[in-house]
Amino acid sequence: MIIVLRPDSTESQIDHILERIRELGFKPHLSRGELRTIIGVIGDENKLAAEPLSAIPGVEQVLPILKPFKLASREFHSTDSVVEVGAARKSTVRPVRVGGGALLMIAGPCAVESAPILDTIAGQVKQAGANLLRGGAFKPRTSPYSFQGLGEEGLRILRDVGDKHGMPVVTEVMDPRQVGMVERYADMFQIGARNMQNFDLLKEVGQARKPVLLKRGMSATVKDMLMSAEYILAEGNPDVVLCERGVRSFEDSTRNMLDLSAVPNVKGQSHLPIIVDPSHATGRPDLIPAMARAAVAAGADGVHVEVHSCPEKALSDGPQALLPPQYASLLRDLRRLAEVMGKSI
Amino acid sequence: MIIVLRPDSTESQIDHILERIRELGFKPHLSRGELRTIIGVIGDENKLAAEPLSAIPGVEQVLPILKPFKLASREFHSTDSVVEVGAARKSTVRPVRVGGGALLMIAGPCAVESAPILDTIAGQVKQAGANLLRGGAFKPRTSPYSFQGLGEEGLRILRDVGDKHGMPVVTEVMDPRQVGMVERYADMFQIGARNMQNFDLLKEVGQARKPVLLKRGMSATVKDMLMSAEYILAEGNPDVVLCERGVRSFEDSTRNMLDLSAVPNVKGQSHLPIIVDPSHATGRPDLIPAMARAAVAAGADGVHVEVHSCPEKALSDGPQALLPPQYASLLRDLRRLAEVMGKSI
Amino acid sequence: MIIVLRPDSTESQIDHILERIRELGFKPHLSRGELRTIIGVIGDENKLAAEPLSAIPGVEQVLPILKPFKLASREFHSTDSVVEVGAARKSTVRPVRVGGGALLMIAGPCAVESAPILDTIAGQVKQAGANLLRGGAFKPRTSPYSFQGLGEEGLRILRDVGDKHGMPVVTEVMDPRQVGMVERYADMFQIGARNMQNFDLLKEVGQARKPVLLKRGMSATVKDMLMSAEYILAEGNPDVVLCERGVRSFEDSTRNMLDLSAVPNVKGQSHLPIIVDPSHATGRPDLIPAMARAAVAAGADGVHVEVHSCPEKALSDGPQALLPPQYASLLRDLRRLAEVMGKSI
Amino acid sequence: MIIVLRPDSTESQIDHILERIRELGFKPHLSRGELRTIIGVIGDENKLAAEPLSAIPGVEQVLPILKPFKLASREFHSTDSVVEVGAARKSTVRPVRVGGGALLMIAGPCAVESAPILDTIAGQVKQAGANLLRGGAFKPRTSPYSFQGLGEEGLRILRDVGDKHGMPVVTEVMDPRQVGMVERYADMFQIGARNMQNFDLLKEVGQARKPVLLKRGMSATVKDMLMSAEYILAEGNPDVVLCERGVRSFEDSTRNMLDLSAVPNVKGQSHLPIIVDPSHATGRPDLIPAMARAAVAAGADGVHVEVHSCPEKALSDGPQALLPPQYASLLRDLRRLAEVMGKSI
Repeated sequence: MIIVLRPDSTESQIDHILERIRELGFKPHLSRGELRTIIGVIGDENKLAAEPLSAIPGVEQVLPILKPFKLASREFHSTDSVVEVGAARKSTVRPVRVGGGALLMIAGPCAVESAPILDTIAGQVKQAGANLLRGGAFKPRTSPYSFQGLGEEGLRILRDVGDKHGMPVVTEVMDPRQVGMVERYADMFQIGARNMQNFDLLKEVGQARKPVLLKRGMSATVKDMLMSAEYILAEGNPDVVLCERGVRSFEDSTRNMLDLSAVPNVKGQSHLPIIVDPSHATGRPDLIPAMARAAVAAGADGVHVEVHSCPEKALSDGPQALLPPQYASLLRDLRRLAEVMGKSI
Repeated sequence: MIIVLRPDSTESQIDHILERIRELGFKPHLSRGELRTIIGVIGDENKLAAEPLSAIPGVEQVLPILKPFKLASREFHSTDSVVEVGAARKSTVRPVRVGGGALLMIAGPCAVESAPILDTIAGQVKQAGANLLRGGAFKPRTSPYSFQGLGEEGLRILRDVGDKHGMPVVTEVMDPRQVGMVERYADMFQIGARNMQNFDLLKEVGQARKPVLLKRGMSATVKDMLMSAEYILAEGNPDVVLCERGVRSFEDSTRNMLDLSAVPNVKGQSHLPIIVDPSHATGRPDLIPAMARAAVAAGADGVHVEVHSCPEKALSDGPQALLPPQYASLLRDLRRLAEVMGKSI
Repeated sequence: MIIVLRPDSTESQIDHILERIRELGFKPHLSRGELRTIIGVIGDENKLAAEPLSAIPGVEQVLPILKPFKLASREFHSTDSVVEVGAARKSTVRPVRVGGGALLMIAGPCAVESAPILDTIAGQVKQAGANLLRGGAFKPRTSPYSFQGLGEEGLRILRDVGDKHGMPVVTEVMDPRQVGMVERYADMFQIGARNMQNFDLLKEVGQARKPVLLKRGMSATVKDMLMSAEYILAEGNPDVVLCERGVRSFEDSTRNMLDLSAVPNVKGQSHLPIIVDPSHATGRPDLIPAMARAAVAAGADGVHVEVHSCPEKALSDGPQALLPPQYASLLRDLRRLAEVMGKSI
Repeated sequence: MIIVLRPDSTESQIDHILERIRELGFKPHLSRGELRTIIGVIGDENKLAAEPLSAIPGVEQVLPILKPFKLASREFHSTDSVVEVGAARKSTVRPVRVGGGALLMIAGPCAVESAPILDTIAGQVKQAGANLLRGGAFKPRTSPYSFQGLGEEGLRILRDVGDKHGMPVVTEVMDPRQVGMVERYADMFQIGARNMQNFDLLKEVGQARKPVLLKRGMSATVKDMLMSAEYILAEGNPDVVLCERGVRSFEDSTRNMLDLSAVPNVKGQSHLPIIVDPSHATGRPDLIPAMARAAVAAGADGVHVEVHSCPEKALSDGPQALLPPQYASLLRDLRRLAEVMGKSI
């Protein structure tokens, strides 16, 4: 940590700052320059971070120099983590791996609507090459008057359909009180963008024993996302998969702005797998295939796509879903790109 | 709702769309123009909103024309709502009103740290003119390694200090499981920016009987904020006070970008009171007084300011707190501005 | 400037960096810490800024510690600058001062449309209290098919109407080739948001002898704006007035997001006056008065408002203009707020 | 265009609006609904766009339904345009095509620094597979104290080096007065992000006879970018190549946020080629290769990368340049991806 002093800082202020740093158990290094005096404090910044050094009179800026996360960092774990989904379940489900060259292909409808509809979609996406089935039972909707999901009934349908097709399943959990229930049915928790900084929920899934798909918040930086992953890891759950799904921006022709640079950005500093969700990012089926291809070429560990056999009757987010044949065509492209990237689906 | 058709839409597509709208119980009006054909669907858009009309083949755009919130709207309640805080408590606490000309002056430290520190600050801010004491017992921190608040012990201290000084108290609730506990101690719930779309939490405080201070999310539009208020109102709790506290932007010299236009923007379409928090918005004590003054001049119903008697030892967000004498000086300015605005503190 | 080295930097890399810094004429200070080694380079950062130090192998980050602007800074000129507009002209025009307690009230239509319309508006805004008349002769329009302004004919009308009412006039200049022509007619140049980083244009008005109203770019930080002012100052023109006019954001109910914190933010680090334009910031007449009041309370040195006597027939931006009686009512409020702020219109 | 009336609009207001629309030469269609009355105005929205309909009393919203650009649209020109660069020059230069399956590979240093340095880099990037050489002679720099480019001397060097290696050259033009000079030396104009809405400059290159590389502004929507292209096309120059280069966002670990969805977004509505510049978008060499690969997989017509043989001595933007061997390695990857996409370099 570097503390830059104000040009008008006094000697007694400087002495006070040095004393304060020593009180906190750190060793300060003072450098007086022509235009500015600076104090270097080299040590564990995580301990210092909670200290309001910039509030001390005479201080102009406090510049951190180390990353604020540990367990999520490459320094902590240098090789790519591989997360296995569906392994815990003793059933017909075929476990799937993500990271280290294995691509996760998540597909399914936005919401679980009924067993027959989900069954149809699951059959089609599995055939196309998807290896993890998604479907929401608890839906975070902007309006209290929109369809909020089928709740536990939705979880039951999702589980049954997953078992029938031999696919592990992922579904969103929104409330810490539902974590236990969701864990009984699903193979992977999804934490949605709106809950990326719902810290009590993060701690709760951190104590569970199923992998977590953590979606980037709509105004979260890459660092914020890694700090949220750190919450889960710090509770003892090592199986976190990140998901870039677009952030809010001024561009009004897409729902969000997909930040694909988050993929190599995360990979440079963290060992966690990261996948991409072009469906929520763009909200436009005409853009989804191109963005899914770009994700694989950028080095993503998987792609999350909403697929619905009858988008115009979907109870949630129908307009952004691909049709099953569109999804099948996309997967053919992704397989060829994965090969160029030295990966496989 | 206006449905704009694609220039290449076919007659059979148009027939299908008209039929679908009738199925949903609405009456479509077809207008064929030189360059585009449009279908007007005038009715309750809240019912239509869940319908994925834009997924129907032949549709180019669906343009909503009505506001998606009801209970929060001026159409529903034309005069300014006045919310009373602290009235339910049989104690020495002096209830405070917000809205309709009465300004809410919330002040206190970011986090409750100890009874003596909070007692000192409460005495000072009350003397300056604050009428609602704040202090966090549960802190949403980006890092799992930062101070997370004193929990129930913090609530107890906050209650005692509030009672001693005759001030009602507000504190953040982050987890639906804590709503009951927080309600026992506090006079007002605060829903923080990170939880503005934590819908289960909104429903839970919507079922409680204490007023709610709902802070705008970091990437929430004004409409999103009003929709979140609608969640609380729809559960039966009419006492919602909104709070503008800045949104994320590219400007890197302030913590967030304070959107003061949200104040008249909300007032034009909603009856709910709205206050402003310049502390979290700017993160800079040198900018807080100017932004607090601007808030009152913009028509805000109150100002929320962090005050700490020793910012450099604060356990959370010290650097952004005003010192008690700075706060007292600010309140003198705000009183004069309130008078110009025909309001009083 | 602080150079933070990578944890894996080698001794020979460190030697190379130290040598490079000495080559550039600076003296490096090496500090080796437990977790990171840093090098302090204290000197004139403006000279170092062009040097790609972060490209040297072994370097992790380069952290600047000084401000990149000089002539615009409070260090260079500690008291508030006062800019006089209209003084150079030997005519009936009454010069107006901005800064140091004097408020600039700019009003007029978006575009100069005809002498009679402008004459009417000028009479009304002058009566209300405006002291500088605006009107565009060259209009930056997103579409090539929109009205582009009357050109020199518009300048002539603006000059005549200003002279008739004894008001100095400001108008936008978009092309360096027009600077001479505009200078002949106008008392102040306006550089629009889209041209804030049109550096050739900045240099050209920097060589002219009339004051410059420099509007903040739609995605410019406060620092960027001050750097653009520095371009003008560095060419010898000391009379720059900044203008906050909103930036692009995800909020879709206002045209831009007005960043009022820019006012105290600029005042803390620069001596230049700064005014606010709530018309372009919000694009909504219902929000303009509240934002104009907030601007004065935030400490702005003036307000720029579009006024049109018949907005529905305006050739440009009519919908965002105030009507003359609305403007007169606003000025009554602003006078009372100015008094509280110790200023006068 | 759809005009939505306020719920409290009066009959005389409605009559006035209908009359005003007829005056403008359009035919209004009135539909009265339960909750809102709307007026459809179907005709050439480009003519209506300049009309301030939303300023008419009784109007709540005006919703455009057609695209505001024509010459740039797929409706105007349904197949992909192919732009040829370097064809006009009678020299050793080998013309290059972009669009319709042909990929443009632009490479070179940020600024032209000297003939020997550029010669070295040109040789290396040509060998790697680049087909268009870049280098800035006029540099838009945030600070007036940074290196501003070599001017005409830089153009001369660029031309000579391009001729020597048989590569066409592209360079930025910032000032309408320089368009003639730049045209004499370069094969393609570059309009930088800061000048995307410098309309006088757009008109000037619109009248020139060389192709234009138009970079997206830092806060421009995709529609804004297409409108700026329309300015050039409307002046008679059909050879416009768009370039996505990232927009401003809150993410602070990359220079800008690369919006790759702009690629399929543009392709859906325009026939113009679009390339991607990952160098300026990310500002980080460690992210450039992944984003270049993603660009090709997203369907871009080319990639623009800064390459420098000695980034640490570059006079401008050195830290973001790739080294020649890194560029060569990237091109090997891009060739394989291009093949999957059915394109070639």
